[in-house]
Amino acid sequence: MFKFPDTINKLRKSISNSGFDGFLVTNDYNRRYISGFSGSAGYLLLTKEDSFLVTDFRYIEQASIEAPGFEIIRMNHHIKWFTDLVRRLNCKSIGFESDDLTVNSFTKIKEEILLGKLQITLEPTTDYIFNIRAIKSEHELNLLKKAIDISDKAFNNVYQNMSPGSSEEQLAWLFEKSVRELGGEAISFDTIVASGSNAARPHHRAGSDLLKERETIVIDCGARFEGYCSDLTRTVVMGHPDKFTKNIYEIVLAAQETAIELVETGMTGEECDSLARNVIREAGYDKNFGHSLGHGVGLQVHELPTIGPKSTLKIEDSMVFTIEPGIYIEGWGGVRIEDIVVMENGKAKLLSNASKSRY
Amino acid sequence: MFKFPDTINKLRKSISNSGFDGFLVTNDYNRRYISGFSGSAGYLLLTKEDSFLVTDFRYIEQASIEAPGFEIIRMNHHIKWFTDLVRRLNCKSIGFESDDLTVNSFTKIKEEILLGKLQITLEPTTDYIFNIRAIKSEHELNLLKKAIDISDKAFNNVYQNMSPGSSEEQLAWLFEKSVRELGGEAISFDTIVASGSNAARPHHRAGSDLLKERETIVIDCGARFEGYCSDLTRTVVMGHPDKFTKNIYEIVLAAQETAIELVETGMTGEECDSLARNVIREAGYDKNFGHSLGHGVGLQVHELPTIGPKSTLKIEDSMVFTIEPGIYIEGWGGVRIEDIVVMENGKAKLLSNASKSRY
Repeated sequence: MFKFPDTINKLRKSISNSGFDGFLVTNDYNRRYISGFSGSAGYLLLTKEDSFLVTDFRYIEQASIEAPGFEIIRMNHHIKWFTDLVRRLNCKSIGFESDDLTVNSFTKIKEEILLGKLQITLEPTTDYIFNIRAIKSEHELNLLKKAIDISDKAFNNVYQNMSPGSSEEQLAWLFEKSVRELGGEAISFDTIVASGSNAARPHHRAGSDLLKERETIVIDCGARFEGYCSDLTRTVVMGHPDKFTKNIYEIVLAAQETAIELVETGMTGEECDSLARNVIREAGYDKNFGHSLGHGVGLQVHELPTIGPKSTLKIEDSMVFTIEPGIYIEGWGGVRIEDIVVMENGKAKLLSNASKSRY
Repeated sequence: MFKFPDTINKLRKSISNSGFDGFLVTNDYNRRYISGFSGSAGYLLLTKEDSFLVTDFRYIEQASIEAPGFEIIRMNHHIKWFTDLVRRLNCKSIGFESDDLTVNSFTKIKEEILLGKLQITLEPTTDYIFNIRAIKSEHELNLLKKAIDISDKAFNNVYQNMSPGSSEEQLAWLFEKSVRELGGEAISFDTIVASGSNAARPHHRAGSDLLKERETIVIDCGARFEGYCSDLTRTVVMGHPDKFTKNIYEIVLAAQETAIELVETGMTGEECDSLARNVIREAGYDKNFGHSLGHGVGLQVHELPTIGPKSTLKIEDSMVFTIEPGIYIEGWGGVRIEDIVVMENGKAKLLSNASKSRY
């Protein structure tokens, strides 16, 4: 009846464990994740037995097609639908996403509750559905694999067509075109092409600088397929890299391979992060690795689990995340290598397939 | 010293009129609008004399280049920078964007205030900077004109290359490629190509349906240039449209031309909306025009002023907005025509230039 019955069951179990009578979903991605509805506006209200999708006139038809199992309600005056519904359902406590709902919307809901003389408590939650989303279903895994396959191929196309004198922007645009021609909906984030000293900044965007031989070129790119995102980084050197460059590259690669080989379910994000960080530390470059080792990917390009120095979340089977150590040296450049893995039977399985021998 | 000194002065005047000691900017677009900083994370805190930009390690360098005049602060543990700053500045009341800040962030700030034993009131505001943004500067107008010029040309390219048998998706992709090749950063929203009965839904996205002769094809598209968005709709018929189609097209065109000719500063958004809506009503199709007449465009593709049936905001010189009446008939299709105007010397001046004789 529902498009994702297992997901709905998981959420209902959470709601029941939290002692809520219902749960209000306001976050766009979570709405899509739970209901299948991909429109840009709407809310979900779920109780033990009922499931409502509230949206405006533009999306009524689309919602009824995309979100089977949900009762579709046309949004009227702002938030009045909410008090109407909770009165009808006789809910006393409703969980909501306090990491999404704005202070202004919350104030309006409270005013409406007061006006309607309802006895309801609104219970703030954080990471509520994000935690559920960290574990991927078979269906999600298939979409992720497709997105990953598209960016692997698009990257290979870029790699085969790059030459000294092309600009960072040209490469970024070639990647984007390739993604679309391969059937991707879009790129999943602004493509990073950082050459030479630009590569020392992990979030440099593609600019007008021209590629030169022997410099490191960091390409961080991704595709979206049916809403699901991929995320891939390769570092390329055209011509023959010097000894220093080769050495940095090999340290980063060893750090990445070590983490992929040794990560296990039951570890925290922090423990996984340290697998790679220790390799870089032993080589003397820990101060040049200023970001986390990785992050979950799914409907968003950054989601749970966080794989970083302060992450206490335990890694479980069916989590999908990036492993992307890097070394950045001001004035020289940088190297980052990133792949996506899925945890299966306690170990990491590599999902990306773009070659890493790039010099 | 600042990149946009006039904008900063306007905001400071607002802050002073509101009786605040300072103002916290959390919205991404407003941060860029006020400071010039285009990174994806950060906050602004402005007082009568001081201006701070707080961002994380990734963006320190970029922020100091893009936002001259701001003191750049590296974000530490979550929100502690905020209490540190307001203590140092001795602020007693701080305005914030309650239509942007989440309940969770607000709770964290309040906890930090309590922990630091500070005497501060946080004052919720809505549409605070959005109201300032409704009036465009010369600089903004130039960027908008460039974005509009790119989408006009990209649309013309699509128009010249469309033929029966191409799919909606192919046209959408051709538009996007043209935008990029013409120097646009990106499309400003997912391109709508709605043919035949799909055109009855104002927000149909481009799908795999193939274009046919004599059907209406609604193309709603835009480009982004240095952050600024354009928004253009044309309705095209390939081959000879029947009498009914021609009639609907002429009604919508007359409604649009009437509004563009008669809109004046001092009117409310509602009064402007009714200029076009009356033409459609007199023709007997008011029930088939289910959306507002228009909306402001700028850093976002939808911003103030709203030009719709409930809009009380007064139209002023230097406001830039769309005028886009439509008629939608279930099972048949739809017609929408949209241009962008700027208010100058009390009257609307057309900024878009794509031809409207499309059959």
